[in-house]
Amino acid sequence: MTPDSAALGHVRDRVDRALQAFVSEQRGVLLAAGDDLRPGAESIAGLLAGGKRLRPAFCYWGWRGAGGPDCPEIIKAAAALELLHAGALVHDDLMDASDTRRGQPSVHRQFEARHAGRGWHGSAAAFGMGAAILLGDLLICWTDEMFHASGLPPGALRRGRPVLDRMRTEVFAGQYLDLLGQAIGDETVAGALRVVEFKTAKYTIERPLHLGAALAGAGLAGTDDAPYAGGGALTGDGGAAGRDGGTAGRDGSLTAAYTAYGLPLGIAFQLRDDILGVFGDPAQTGKPAGDDVREGKRTVLLAIARSRATAGQAQVIDRYLGDPLLDGAGTAEVRAAIAGTGAVAECERMIGRHVSEAIAALEGAPMTGEAREALAELAVAATARVG
Amino acid sequence: MTPDSAALGHVRDRVDRALQAFVSEQRGVLLAAGDDLRPGAESIAGLLAGGKRLRPAFCYWGWRGAGGPDCPEIIKAAAALELLHAGALVHDDLMDASDTRRGQPSVHRQFEARHAGRGWHGSAAAFGMGAAILLGDLLICWTDEMFHASGLPPGALRRGRPVLDRMRTEVFAGQYLDLLGQAIGDETVAGALRVVEFKTAKYTIERPLHLGAALAGAGLAGTDDAPYAGGGALTGDGGAAGRDGGTAGRDGSLTAAYTAYGLPLGIAFQLRDDILGVFGDPAQTGKPAGDDVREGKRTVLLAIARSRATAGQAQVIDRYLGDPLLDGAGTAEVRAAIAGTGAVAECERMIGRHVSEAIAALEGAPMTGEAREALAELAVAATARVG
Repeated sequence: MTPDSAALGHVRDRVDRALQAFVSEQRGVLLAAGDDLRPGAESIAGLLAGGKRLRPAFCYWGWRGAGGPDCPEIIKAAAALELLHAGALVHDDLMDASDTRRGQPSVHRQFEARHAGRGWHGSAAAFGMGAAILLGDLLICWTDEMFHASGLPPGALRRGRPVLDRMRTEVFAGQYLDLLGQAIGDETVAGALRVVEFKTAKYTIERPLHLGAALAGAGLAGTDDAPYAGGGALTGDGGAAGRDGGTAGRDGSLTAAYTAYGLPLGIAFQLRDDILGVFGDPAQTGKPAGDDVREGKRTVLLAIARSRATAGQAQVIDRYLGDPLLDGAGTAEVRAAIAGTGAVAECERMIGRHVSEAIAALEGAPMTGEAREALAELAVAATARVG
Repeated sequence: MTPDSAALGHVRDRVDRALQAFVSEQRGVLLAAGDDLRPGAESIAGLLAGGKRLRPAFCYWGWRGAGGPDCPEIIKAAAALELLHAGALVHDDLMDASDTRRGQPSVHRQFEARHAGRGWHGSAAAFGMGAAILLGDLLICWTDEMFHASGLPPGALRRGRPVLDRMRTEVFAGQYLDLLGQAIGDETVAGALRVVEFKTAKYTIERPLHLGAALAGAGLAGTDDAPYAGGGALTGDGGAAGRDGGTAGRDGSLTAAYTAYGLPLGIAFQLRDDILGVFGDPAQTGKPAGDDVREGKRTVLLAIARSRATAGQAQVIDRYLGDPLLDGAGTAEVRAAIAGTGAVAECERMIGRHVSEAIAALEGAPMTGEAREALAELAVAATARVG
């Protein structure tokens, strides 16, 4: 993430502290079950120390854009998304057999090494798998705990709940489509984009924004439990909100604007990730060079490269894709082949187009001026990053 | 489960219908992401068609015992526990490499077979693992969705939420302790009992009862959002409730009574499971004969058998424990060795003692007479079962 992203930094530090406080409380619950839970608690704390906090940032600004006030409660509710994400990453790394995450060994590798180092009984890999499944489950469950203990009014939580529910069903459905696509050998750009829609665009951007908006009462005007909708919280905003008249219209079009911003931005975000997954600097990404190639990931970048490759380029890509022993020389070779197809340039063009589309969707959308600026800034930060 | 368990049957049919309705709705959400999600939706529906619905039954009677009225909302909230349990089972079967569940192939085996049968790319086992992780995650997330959409009053859900949270952290912590115990080769009876406390006694019985009580307002007297506590719902109960005077005292001692009933009953329940895991009839248990031996499970029964075994008996047990190829002849031999140690008789004595202790805890507890009878009946049903 670019260091000058104020819209993200504003939220990130407070999300960090909220997560630390939550995890420290849970540590007590775990240790009450037995001191043997200490490595599990430490592994979780280590994983949660990293992360860009993108989903909480979008949730926060989705709330602010709908007129929600800055307050500690929305920070806690938004931070809960980071627990879901951490749990999904633990499970994802296990499924992908990834060795590293955020510059550290992945959770299943940590526990595998623990088992191997102590010469315990049975299979070290099975132990690592079991620990990763259980710690991921814990993190996923803690999402709800932190969300409901955020201190937001009950009516707000009740409005947000269905959005959180939908978001989770979509992300796991998207991951299954990804797994299936890899199995059936779907190498089309369309197939890869469908996975991106559910696994990234909705999950990372659109739904967090919708969650923030629902918590603030947008889209539910007329119900008696919408404390922040169309109310005084928007006053002092300099007239940016309420542009299209009635509250119902404003809320409906705010949700629509978040979708119009979130979906293209989500695709751009994933395309940046695709490029970093092949061309990124390990010191910045926290992942080994060329990791997506090594893991044989079915990304949009690779789908485009394949669709444009000459026979020679295709041969190089096929030779290294999914090769667990891919080394520095191989990485350089496959990078040259992919770049040679023009796929990287095409992805950069797509990123530019999608970011512009996302930012354009903010124009005229019925939200506070501060939120509009923050979301425009976030759009750039999420897609111009180097790690 | 014994067919004559009215206290369970009363709840089970309605829980079944609530789960069917919920899963059918979720199927629509999944298919909206793509028709490729159909096998996942079907696998989940198949898994949820089975099950004893013990946790929902304890939650329901925990609620009724605290004076909560019979209503569809508590059935839905209680049924949510079955989704958590199904998700945990999917993950548990994957960790244990179990082939079957409820008489069907386990979820990871279903998807492994799907991959192998179609000759898809990559490893069929990895595909099965990935699908099982994701479907388990979905089920675990749906717990919260069904719980919060149950229709119970917001105040009730707010009171129940921390109990549900604690219950989930405990069960995954207990599973980790189990995994760890197996790895470090802890063969003590005390070690096995500690796992049973968290993984079974609290999770299956104590916490579901506490959840029902918290939803009904027990233990939180004096707060302004306890609609069913100490109120008219207990009238007409024939004076069974409120025996020890003030509402706060009643609620406190109801929660304590549920613990005093739930923990010994949980141990008895698990001991029955341990016996069925070695001596059960596959037609009744839905699992192959001797499955716990084949999987090398570290049960209390096996810990007792080891602690009492002669050198010859220990040799037989060690020979077959964890042997994936254990056949009918081996099962018969290991059964004879275990029974010969007297461990089965000891477990039966422990079951009897713990069930008596559980039922005695109901005597004089401040709950409705109907609930007391139902819980006494459930104690027998949960421990006298053959499958």
